Amino acid sequence: MKNCIVAQSGGPTAAINASLAGVIQGALHHKYGHIYGSLNGITGILEEQFLDLTEIFQEKKVLDQLKISPAMYLGSCRYKLPNPNEDITPYETIFRFFEKMEIAAFFYIGGNDSMDTVDKLSAYAAKTQSKVRIIGIPKTIDNDLCLTDHTPGFGSAAKYVAASLLEIYHDTAIYNVKSVTIVEIMGRDAGWLAAASALARNGYSAAPHLIYLPETAFDPEAFLADVQKLLKKYNNVIVAVSEGIRNKNGAYISASTGTADTFGHSQLSGAGKTLEYLVQDRLHVKVRSIELNILQRCGSHIASRTDIEESFCQGEHGVSLAAEGRTGLMVTLTRTSSDPYQTACSASPVCEIANKVKSVPPEFITPQGNDVTPQLISYLKPLIQGEVNITFSEGIPNYLPVPHLL
Amino acid sequence: MKNCIVAQSGGPTAAINASLAGVIQGALHHKYGHIYGSLNGITGILEEQFLDLTEIFQEKKVLDQLKISPAMYLGSCRYKLPNPNEDITPYETIFRFFEKMEIAAFFYIGGNDSMDTVDKLSAYAAKTQSKVRIIGIPKTIDNDLCLTDHTPGFGSAAKYVAASLLEIYHDTAIYNVKSVTIVEIMGRDAGWLAAASALARNGYSAAPHLIYLPETAFDPEAFLADVQKLLKKYNNVIVAVSEGIRNKNGAYISASTGTADTFGHSQLSGAGKTLEYLVQDRLHVKVRSIELNILQRCGSHIASRTDIEESFCQGEHGVSLAAEGRTGLMVTLTRTSSDPYQTACSASPVCEIANKVKSVPPEFITPQGNDVTPQLISYLKPLIQGEVNITFSEGIPNYLPVPHLL
Repeated sequence: MKNCIVAQSGGPTAAINASLAGVIQGALHHKYGHIYGSLNGITGILEEQFLDLTEIFQEKKVLDQLKISPAMYLGSCRYKLPNPNEDITPYETIFRFFEKMEIAAFFYIGGNDSMDTVDKLSAYAAKTQSKVRIIGIPKTIDNDLCLTDHTPGFGSAAKYVAASLLEIYHDTAIYNVKSVTIVEIMGRDAGWLAAASALARNGYSAAPHLIYLPETAFDPEAFLADVQKLLKKYNNVIVAVSEGIRNKNGAYISASTGTADTFGHSQLSGAGKTLEYLVQDRLHVKVRSIELNILQRCGSHIASRTDIEESFCQGEHGVSLAAEGRTGLMVTLTRTSSDPYQTACSASPVCEIANKVKSVPPEFITPQGNDVTPQLISYLKPLIQGEVNITFSEGIPNYLPVPHLL
Repeated sequence: MKNCIVAQSGGPTAAINASLAGVIQGALHHKYGHIYGSLNGITGILEEQFLDLTEIFQEKKVLDQLKISPAMYLGSCRYKLPNPNEDITPYETIFRFFEKMEIAAFFYIGGNDSMDTVDKLSAYAAKTQSKVRIIGIPKTIDNDLCLTDHTPGFGSAAKYVAASLLEIYHDTAIYNVKSVTIVEIMGRDAGWLAAASALARNGYSAAPHLIYLPETAFDPEAFLADVQKLLKKYNNVIVAVSEGIRNKNGAYISASTGTADTFGHSQLSGAGKTLEYLVQDRLHVKVRSIELNILQRCGSHIASRTDIEESFCQGEHGVSLAAEGRTGLMVTLTRTSSDPYQTACSASPVCEIANKVKSVPPEFITPQGNDVTPQLISYLKPLIQGEVNITFSEGIPNYLPVPHLL
């Protein structure tokens, strides 16, 4: 068998290295000669910056460590291929590289933008009758890719969000004083991750008491009324809010003007901070906002085992597709059974997925637009099940070093 | 034996319930009749709001679950006892309650302010010849209590900070673009927790590359020069900063004026955000700030086993002191050996601890004021060792419910 090459692209997740491990495992199984890793996404191919992964991952224990390490072993890029009708140069460079290195298959692990690259390269390969198989392997904590049940990386981020929300509940429950806590969660265009905060609810905690997603127009007055009503029932009201909430005119609930700090700089505030000031100003109650920030996407120490295993399998499945001679596909996941939860790897033409966004459908949001439905919780719950065995050295997690990225 | 009562006060930590579990275990061992738990600190005694913990914690497995649950099972308060020369009423109320409930010992788990309460109650007991033993049991993620090697709760917060910093390193390492990441860590007056970020460094990562503590005057120009220098060596510079950094005039590096967001509210920004804007404005490089916020004090899912066990022992030891007839003391910890790391419980008069702050001494900070010394790292490292066995239900941690606080 000839060689293959794999790359990662877009924002990091706790599971994108699990998909890489799956690709390596699959490529070893299908006996590709060399398994190359392109550094910093497709730009590594354009600039001939790559590693030979076959040597690095000889030992199973190194592959196992890769599987549970956060972010991206091969680095990332935000490179978008030009329209081939306008500039064919990068396409020619890429396929010349494939020929020189005797590449039979290229695997690209990424989100929406990366699937655009897979789509364009597949089309170019078809047009030029290249035999190189081009396969997309999904990843995104946003869970917004179409035609797949859910995306690799989402379950681990959701588990981090849910566990953190529960811990925030314990933290806020201690004072006998009314308070509001706003938790801002990633997801600019799709509210899946903010919705996953509902998984923090258990037998004794109803937090978060309110959930706002970008899919519903945010009404500040309705929000204030909701908070006020809940403060009659609970001492400490916890609100989960997507970073991407917008008002009825489509403007983000954020931004600021005319600000100056100690050093005289202007400032912008996110959705969480903005709601914090709104509550403070209008309800005169103790309020705090918490931005989960990038920790929600790189918190491998509390990754979901379901997510890590499914991500690995989808990497492996991508290699099987290429080995069968298929191309222009993105690996997808089908939920074959809900009770018990079961999934199977599948595939769809990447052209039907690239540049599209799967939002939270209206039927998964309550009519008031301030919570998610039990159906959405049932869909989400299996994705955060199970824990990953992380080992620790000197008190901190043992992850795979990424010395070539330093 | 008569009864005893225990309460918790101040800000929450991941280990303050371990100390409570230690008190309960110790009181069971010393055969106190009833072990009462005052709700919301000393105010629960003033208002006769309490639980009988003897019944609730009959089963060892419930006590074990308490030990690893974040924040405060009994709730907290920020009540400061008045000067007894000005108002004796609360003292009389408290000791009347002790008499009525046949209380032989009162255990108060808390930080600086709580030790002030222990001190005042001890003095009142001595003056009125009360036989009630008054014992303080330390807690604070700030590690700023005097006369003890380190404080319960600090090690778990330090482990959360170090693990998160390592994950942030992995997350930032992926792009081939220069960037600066500022991580704001709790500790308004003492930099111990920000210093613990140094424990994130390992064989492949030198992050955080800069550490700023409140103990050293913060010089914005020196900071910018440091960052600029490091950007020549590293693609992604990570800076750990205490929320309490101040300039040479003692003013906090934070605050803002004349700000207005979408809703027209004024804003304040913390140290991290302020440095973010400084870097953006002056160095024109990609920059992000991350506030670890309350997650660093309630992240029990990544608690330090060393911290949890030591916190438990200190709770137990407090009861032994009272059972021996001692009073007016705070339990302390003595490092009996550094290699191997060993500690023993001890005690000091609470009047020597209350209202005092232990800062990071100058010899633990580099002369440039932008990092900590290897000696400080050696002191900190043992405190984050070991992990706690957390079980999960439906994907989220199994903590002890606190229904009485709802």
